[in-house]
Amino acid sequence: MTRKSLDHFNCSWAKTAEAIGDKWSIMIIRSAFFGVTTFSEFLDELAISKNILAQRLDHLITHGVLRRVPSRPGGTRLVYRLTDKGRDLFPAIVALGQWGDKWIFGEGNEPVIVVDRANEQPVLPMEVKAKDGRPLMLREAGYVAGPGATEETRAMAGRTSQIAHS
Amino acid sequence: MTRKSLDHFNCSWAKTAEAIGDKWSIMIIRSAFFGVTTFSEFLDELAISKNILAQRLDHLITHGVLRRVPSRPGGTRLVYRLTDKGRDLFPAIVALGQWGDKWIFGEGNEPVIVVDRANEQPVLPMEVKAKDGRPLMLREAGYVAGPGATEETRAMAGRTSQIAHS
Repeated sequence: MTRKSLDHFNCSWAKTAEAIGDKWSIMIIRSAFFGVTTFSEFLDELAISKNILAQRLDHLITHGVLRRVPSRPGGTRLVYRLTDKGRDLFPAIVALGQWGDKWIFGEGNEPVIVVDRANEQPVLPMEVKAKDGRPLMLREAGYVAGPGATEETRAMAGRTSQIAHS
Repeated sequence: MTRKSLDHFNCSWAKTAEAIGDKWSIMIIRSAFFGVTTFSEFLDELAISKNILAQRLDHLITHGVLRRVPSRPGGTRLVYRLTDKGRDLFPAIVALGQWGDKWIFGEGNEPVIVVDRANEQPVLPMEVKAKDGRPLMLREAGYVAGPGATEETRAMAGRTSQIAHS
């Protein structure tokens, strides 16, 4: 049996990918973080068709990442804003951008840098940290079934539990 | 003018999204981190069509995220392994998974938890950090044109430089 949707997976990556895992969604979310709010601004910024843009904005609203609200209280013009859920994608968005900076543009060729506004210093490279705060090397990382694991997930996590590191 | 590819963007998010920004690519990368290496294991794990899987694996090889190598030196059976570039997606993958844990499954219902193998303690929530190591709040974050910015990017970053935080 083959499937087109990821909805059946007992997996946070599947749910996340279903919600935001397409290239235009990633670009819309990145633009929203950069302050884009109106349909026409998104259209200008992304240069995609109105149909695709409208569809992706609706998809992100359905998944609770964006909301459509009046631009000011009592106003009639509607804008798109990140919800709390959407804003909480900030670490993921920074990590994805830093990966492109490092591996595609390369050090010294970054087009845009996320900074601390107080001093315009770049944020630190994103790192996975162990509970004691030290950076966790890939070879030290593993995975275990969580409290929401199904039997199938439990069996998968039981078979192998080391993160691939070489 | 409307476009289907993101290649023209002077933007790391666009390049990253072009390389890995589709839901099956995200699932393949997540499975690779969990130790999946063979075509048939990916097929079992993801339950997609052979065509789509083959296409996505090739795409990830083209973009340098995976490589196809003999399963052991001198062997003839080929397996898919993350490259250094692919392994460096670990922070992004952890951030995406944690977002799904928090916002879709919810605390206490996580299907799979990434841990420190030494003590099976969950890794810390991913955070964007300022240069001095403190967590950077969204309202404190901004963006500036980097050394690789085009004139257009420079103009965009000059108009507004605060990350959307409300």
